[in-house]
Amino acid sequence: LNTGSPRPIEAYGIGSFEGSPPRGVAKSGAGVIDLNALQSGGALRSLGLPESLFAGKSLNGFMSLGRDTWFAVEERLTELIETGQVPEEALHPLGSARLSLPVEVADFCDFYASEHHASNIGRILRPGTDPLPAAWRTIPLGYHGRAGTVVVSGTPVRRPMGVVMTADGPRYGPSGRLDLEVELGYVVGVPSNNGQAVRVEDAREHIFGVVVVNDWSARDIQAFEYQPLGPFLGKSFATSVSAWIVPLSAIELWAVDGPEQGDEVPPHLACAQPRAFDVNFELSINSTVLSRPAARYLHWSAGQLVSHLTSNGAGLRTGDILATGTVSGPEESSWGCLMELTWGGERPVSLSDGSRRSWLEDGDTVTITATCGSGGTVTLGDVAGKVLG
Amino acid sequence: LNTGSPRPIEAYGIGSFEGSPPRGVAKSGAGVIDLNALQSGGALRSLGLPESLFAGKSLNGFMSLGRDTWFAVEERLTELIETGQVPEEALHPLGSARLSLPVEVADFCDFYASEHHASNIGRILRPGTDPLPAAWRTIPLGYHGRAGTVVVSGTPVRRPMGVVMTADGPRYGPSGRLDLEVELGYVVGVPSNNGQAVRVEDAREHIFGVVVVNDWSARDIQAFEYQPLGPFLGKSFATSVSAWIVPLSAIELWAVDGPEQGDEVPPHLACAQPRAFDVNFELSINSTVLSRPAARYLHWSAGQLVSHLTSNGAGLRTGDILATGTVSGPEESSWGCLMELTWGGERPVSLSDGSRRSWLEDGDTVTITATCGSGGTVTLGDVAGKVLG
Repeated sequence: LNTGSPRPIEAYGIGSFEGSPPRGVAKSGAGVIDLNALQSGGALRSLGLPESLFAGKSLNGFMSLGRDTWFAVEERLTELIETGQVPEEALHPLGSARLSLPVEVADFCDFYASEHHASNIGRILRPGTDPLPAAWRTIPLGYHGRAGTVVVSGTPVRRPMGVVMTADGPRYGPSGRLDLEVELGYVVGVPSNNGQAVRVEDAREHIFGVVVVNDWSARDIQAFEYQPLGPFLGKSFATSVSAWIVPLSAIELWAVDGPEQGDEVPPHLACAQPRAFDVNFELSINSTVLSRPAARYLHWSAGQLVSHLTSNGAGLRTGDILATGTVSGPEESSWGCLMELTWGGERPVSLSDGSRRSWLEDGDTVTITATCGSGGTVTLGDVAGKVLG
Repeated sequence: LNTGSPRPIEAYGIGSFEGSPPRGVAKSGAGVIDLNALQSGGALRSLGLPESLFAGKSLNGFMSLGRDTWFAVEERLTELIETGQVPEEALHPLGSARLSLPVEVADFCDFYASEHHASNIGRILRPGTDPLPAAWRTIPLGYHGRAGTVVVSGTPVRRPMGVVMTADGPRYGPSGRLDLEVELGYVVGVPSNNGQAVRVEDAREHIFGVVVVNDWSARDIQAFEYQPLGPFLGKSFATSVSAWIVPLSAIELWAVDGPEQGDEVPPHLACAQPRAFDVNFELSINSTVLSRPAARYLHWSAGQLVSHLTSNGAGLRTGDILATGTVSGPEESSWGCLMELTWGGERPVSLSDGSRRSWLEDGDTVTITATCGSGGTVTLGDVAGKVLG
């Protein structure tokens, strides 16, 4: 089993094989390891884990056990791989696994952590004013999304219906401005107590790993509804996440400084450098690469998002997902949604088949891949979805 | 067992007795019926329900089974009560039950369904402009809240911390403008499919029942954060719900016309009268009654909230709660939050001990009770919580 990666265990997920019930799996190169088979076969016995830990339909049980267990499992799996001790019945080719949503999602939060994205949106929607919302540099702005419509990569996404403003007034119909958003999502493993804020530097005790996120957005539905309560039905129809969760410890190897923060940041959110990750995305529609957003431009760190979310006393639960919001960089080639890439729909982008897009059309497949480091050799994951009419 | 109610079975909840594990219970007058004891004793055998249906920590399993089962259970329980067949071991005095959160909350949504509330907030925050948001009469405005911090009545609520604007700029500290909101909450039993909007008239197939809600709000945290993504940490620290869920069919007996709706309402949300409920609240702080909000003034009906939420294709899940937002009537005596009652903190209210309140103080206990009908003899439920510093 040659993974071509510095870490033999790259990611965790939920998979089934030839109709078997779903169970916890680990990705290692071109192979998928059936963790439930390992556990019931005794290969993980030394770890003293619950017998059915990997027998469920989500990784929540495993994720809740904390860093010591996460590291012990990874170490033992690495040992099994490197010594050729993975039993044949627990090893499957990557393509044979049918992957499902790896997390039972508790609460889904979405932030607005990219300065370039927030500024672009401000310039498009409120030209001539300060493009950033007043509180933007002081606290990470965010909102709660719909946990029940988070779907795994590969799930088709139906074009949402909604009430939008037309020349004849508001009308209910299919969204005409369907968009995608390139995001990174932090998946919470270890819960925190209600009433107790998580410190920025302690967030890594809670975050199990990261997923790649496409936060589908209907801009016309959103525009009609968002004052004063924020995004709602323009977002809640679907959010796609990658099937593989990459351990936080893996992307921590790619920590980089990130943008400067000003003294607007209050002391409880202050955070030493480095606090960004060198994660590089590639956004495609129907195989035409449209942009390459980069997470190193994100203004707010994972630790700051977790700390802010809990700063009012709200506890974390296993399965919470905190997404960054659209990841956009300074150049047009690094913008993370059509709203920016087409500047509000005014400047359509071209696909390789010669067609043009202001917004997504029925039948379009959106694919977002992510790799770590500038070489792009270490895959972080990918999320794909086709638009159905 | 004389319930003094037209319906012997008034509500369902989750309770434990003298340290027993939590189980499903029903309220009947001054008694609590242990549904798990009935089920394991065979008294519900004719219904063919799963053996452990009432053995869990939530009512979700029961709620998911749909109206036919809800009605069959109520009918059988009524028969057992009226014929004196409830076994002694399944019957407990009301005070002996330790009640817990009756629902495993899936997604929590909050709306803005009261015209009087939305208008008052507009007048306070944006004087001199049209007080209602532009889309308000066309669609029910709403947002997703935090499901993980929904707590049962009686749970103390810690004053949230947060970043608020001060004369010296933004500062992190305890909220100085802690408020309550009187709301009604619709609890979803039967899920709906993603991609399929629920029609207004079909919402009753999905809503199991109603709870009384106190949507605690930190107005200063909310004011600093809410542009442009809406309420977030100003709300997410706690939402209290009553321990008893009253079946929808019970409050449907109290259906009333509700306010007129204009032709702004799009056809898919159109709804025949009657579409409000004659539910009357009483809001108290430390036993001083401050106001009597009435649900008959709610502009948007339960069916319209459900239909709107699913109109973009988002599915319902068992355990979703849709809250109405603050219930306020036309008169000051029927306003449902301190923001309105003190007009943004400018006109403190007086309590019976001579003290005054612009906002909640540590140690204050907020109690909201609700009854059906103008006589107020049929209890809908109550929700109480004490503010801790």
